[in-house]
Amino acid sequence: MTDTSQDRHYTENVQNKLKQVESLLNKLALLEKIIHRQDLPREDRHSLVDTLAHRQHLAALRLKLDSLHPADIAYILEALPIERRLQVWDLVKTERDGKILVEVSEPVRESLITSMNREELDAAAGRLDTDEIADLAPDLPHDVMHDVFKSLSIEEREQLHAAISYSGDSVGALMDFNMIHIRDDATLELVSRYLRRFDELPDHTDQLFVVDRDDCFKGVLPLNRIVVNEPEVAVGKLIITDTLQLHPDEKAEQAALAFERYGLVSAPVVDEDGKLVGRVTVDVVLDFIRTGTENDLLNQAGLREKEDIFAPVWESAKNRWTWLALNLCTVFFASRVIGSFEGTIVKFVALATLLPIVAGIARNSANQTTAIILRSLSMGQITRDNARRLLLKELAIGVLNGLVWGGVSGLFAYFLYHSVSLGIVMTSAMLLNLMVGATASVAIPLIMQKLGRNPAIGSSVLITAITDSGGFFIFLGLATIFLT
Amino acid sequence: MTDTSQDRHYTENVQNKLKQVESLLNKLALLEKIIHRQDLPREDRHSLVDTLAHRQHLAALRLKLDSLHPADIAYILEALPIERRLQVWDLVKTERDGKILVEVSEPVRESLITSMNREELDAAAGRLDTDEIADLAPDLPHDVMHDVFKSLSIEEREQLHAAISYSGDSVGALMDFNMIHIRDDATLELVSRYLRRFDELPDHTDQLFVVDRDDCFKGVLPLNRIVVNEPEVAVGKLIITDTLQLHPDEKAEQAALAFERYGLVSAPVVDEDGKLVGRVTVDVVLDFIRTGTENDLLNQAGLREKEDIFAPVWESAKNRWTWLALNLCTVFFASRVIGSFEGTIVKFVALATLLPIVAGIARNSANQTTAIILRSLSMGQITRDNARRLLLKELAIGVLNGLVWGGVSGLFAYFLYHSVSLGIVMTSAMLLNLMVGATASVAIPLIMQKLGRNPAIGSSVLITAITDSGGFFIFLGLATIFLT
Repeated sequence: MTDTSQDRHYTENVQNKLKQVESLLNKLALLEKIIHRQDLPREDRHSLVDTLAHRQHLAALRLKLDSLHPADIAYILEALPIERRLQVWDLVKTERDGKILVEVSEPVRESLITSMNREELDAAAGRLDTDEIADLAPDLPHDVMHDVFKSLSIEEREQLHAAISYSGDSVGALMDFNMIHIRDDATLELVSRYLRRFDELPDHTDQLFVVDRDDCFKGVLPLNRIVVNEPEVAVGKLIITDTLQLHPDEKAEQAALAFERYGLVSAPVVDEDGKLVGRVTVDVVLDFIRTGTENDLLNQAGLREKEDIFAPVWESAKNRWTWLALNLCTVFFASRVIGSFEGTIVKFVALATLLPIVAGIARNSANQTTAIILRSLSMGQITRDNARRLLLKELAIGVLNGLVWGGVSGLFAYFLYHSVSLGIVMTSAMLLNLMVGATASVAIPLIMQKLGRNPAIGSSVLITAITDSGGFFIFLGLATIFLT
Repeated sequence: MTDTSQDRHYTENVQNKLKQVESLLNKLALLEKIIHRQDLPREDRHSLVDTLAHRQHLAALRLKLDSLHPADIAYILEALPIERRLQVWDLVKTERDGKILVEVSEPVRESLITSMNREELDAAAGRLDTDEIADLAPDLPHDVMHDVFKSLSIEEREQLHAAISYSGDSVGALMDFNMIHIRDDATLELVSRYLRRFDELPDHTDQLFVVDRDDCFKGVLPLNRIVVNEPEVAVGKLIITDTLQLHPDEKAEQAALAFERYGLVSAPVVDEDGKLVGRVTVDVVLDFIRTGTENDLLNQAGLREKEDIFAPVWESAKNRWTWLALNLCTVFFASRVIGSFEGTIVKFVALATLLPIVAGIARNSANQTTAIILRSLSMGQITRDNARRLLLKELAIGVLNGLVWGGVSGLFAYFLYHSVSLGIVMTSAMLLNLMVGATASVAIPLIMQKLGRNPAIGSSVLITAITDSGGFFIFLGLATIFLT
């Protein structure tokens, strides 16, 4: 639950807030430099004035931070280099630490948590809902988790236990427990009286969840319907029973697609016995979608995980090495493919100059196909019925591209080296390589999906390896047969 | 507004629904083939039975479609090849056409609209809200828009006019007009009585918008607060005034980030005079985010726009040609760079085999950096203060990678060709090229952003061109100096 009571300056652009914090930090840094100058006598008048100014700016910064929404502070922390980030983190009121930790991205969260001691972490986690504690759990030290666990009620312990046990890509991981349930035998009058006992309803309460005596899920009652109907109407007459029910073990991606398709704000999570165990809300789904597509972008570019842009060089380098190492193997292989045709290249050095054309166009074209296939896969739109059709279509585009761009490249080669046969070899090699690329870029993501792996990870490295080495082999092979 | 009254089988997985529709279509196709077989006499008994079965399956398919949510039908239409898509489209009840057209992706929408005549389109558009008509407007023929416009009330005409006039990436384009406004001098009692006049509130009504006599925006009153407070409380005591206000000309991306950060369900749109003109809801924001990140993925892969996976080969090819043509220019250039060192290659044919290593590793590493920079840019986290730091950091990673992977590659070259100087040239070339790549992949997106262009479009083509041609030039240049 976010606190809505305080003045949060929502109307101001968050980039402006960042700039204001940065400018205060700049002034502080400047003043600190002046104060700590060794060449001036310590009791110099300036120093006193500066110390005062320093204190003033510090107070201004603290005030500014207090006025910001936890999500805005999270945003600012992510955009600041490490030392400044920790400086700001120290100034944030302790009681808000928890909410902010939930909001920041994982690598930045790690950098903040390592700067905190056990008491601070206990205090931060202690103020959170159980589903939020579950989100932080992987990053919290064991002793802190132990303290937090001890401080919870039995019901909360069960919730936390459940929330932690679901795998990260399941509905269970998106779930919270802040749902309001009512009985199906009540009247609106009774429901209204029950609701007035709350000071405020949990965020994203667009509907109440209706259960029977055994906590079995019966349907939902939108707040909308409560306010447009007369108090004497029975809940049973207004509930919607044909509503989306999620299951804690279902894939989170499926739930996200359902939220998008049906424009949901919240949805009940029901276990296999039909019991209501929690709810999922649209804000969490939004986060999940943003993070998911971001990770896809990063994975496709060959990064292992999300990076703190100000992480130490060494850590960032490690994040990138898995794929670079794999890439090194594939280019070594491509290099040996060329090496095995050294004899041909010695006779026709022109071949060496044309190699990047054969590989480059096929690589680019395969990337386009991969992007389309990955999108359709993530939307769940590729079925057994249409996969063959897609492959044939991409092959056809490959042939078309091969004739057009292969033709242009053949002419390019002919005009440069005045050899008709070189031109023909060039065009044929590009045609064949584009077909190889099209096949690979449809087949590889589909096969990876079939094997239960994320097709966004590693597809493009593999496909590039195939169009590179394949292209070199086809081009130099044809040249060896027809030119020598 | 989506219709919530009907039974929509929410609880069933949409992929299953697609499979059911596909299997019905398969049966229909099979029956049609049997019925139209020319070698059997027309009055054959079988034919009658088959015709009956055909009619039954058709009825079953129509029934199935009637039971589906418009968004599910949109999903199914997108996943079907063109002829089957149009077959299903014909079976959908006319009164639901409009809602479905709003839901499908643009290229698929075009394929559906071209299959409809003026009357059908008039009927489809006539049932939509003005903001939905505005979404369809670019794809509707002029005469249909004319008919639709004539059928609207004066107020609706003004809304439609306003909605169409905002640019596609502004808040105005996300806005709808289904907000409920109340006066700040009312009591909850009065508000409740007003709300009971509605049969149902518009979707995503989590708050009412409070305005004064002149329609100036004063604040919001969450439904939450209505249900937890006693009827006699005055609206003025409960309204939240420090709430996010969007402006119609603001960038939609900014609004989306605000929805994510603050977990909003709806937000008021207010013009420069402080008048309430519309609202934005989270479902539209979700669509916007999904489409935006998808377009980024497609653009980075070198596609001009989103593609219907079953578009005719010719249309898909055109969508891909802009970037392939540009790519052809860059590889021709790279080819000429190699060509200008033909003399060196003739002497050391080993150089030709090592070229893909120098270019490939730098390309891959630059892609990683670009992905991180693009992510930070889209989150608005790169400021003047931290851009220099980022460049230095990426350069440092480039040097580290150059020493490690360049070193390995140097050894590879040495062991293959037994030349120490070749190994040193190899390592140096990779070190330099990785630094060139790091600089380009930080600088190019930042410069494009500065020039007001979308940095996701074209960055990677440019950066690849630089690491390819640059790598060839550095490697062959160093080789010419030190090996010959």
